[in-house]
Amino acid sequence: MRFRAEIDVMPLKEILDPQGKAVKLGLDNLGVKEVHDVRIGKHIQLEVEAADKAEAEQKVELACKKLLANLIMEFYEYKIFEAEMA
Amino acid sequence: MRFRAEIDVMPLKEILDPQGKAVKLGLDNLGVKEVHDVRIGKHIQLEVEAADKAEAEQKVELACKKLLANLIMEFYEYKIFEAEMA
Repeated sequence: MRFRAEIDVMPLKEILDPQGKAVKLGLDNLGVKEVHDVRIGKHIQLEVEAADKAEAEQKVELACKKLLANLIMEFYEYKIFEAEMA
Repeated sequence: MRFRAEIDVMPLKEILDPQGKAVKLGLDNLGVKEVHDVRIGKHIQLEVEAADKAEAEQKVELACKKLLANLIMEFYEYKIFEAEMA
């Protein structure tokens, strides 16, 4: 079966996010006021073949831990869906 | 009222995603096989003050169009929630 994973990798709350600060300033300059707590991370979409959802989760966990997220500075969260057959 | 927006900015389907290709290769090398269609984009979280959800959406649209996404190469999608009062 084929599963689709939607993964977010974000900077940890304790860590400054200069890119987010820059976007906040940019929005102020554009006239979009009253925006707070801008944080910027990565969004990863992928499809994975697996026998069941548990196996797909295992693969996505491994991908996040070993490659996609730097766990010292980032955390990840993901959702897994059954992919529609094309 | 305060709303929280979760925004994804992703490369258009028609456009090559070399970062996604690199991650796919990296996963192969890690032994995570049978992964397809890896695409990498940005995930932006922000909070915005607005009178209602419609106004919050308007602000987020503007932020996406004017600052966060390059509409020639990227598309965006977002969800808006009422933020919990802290």
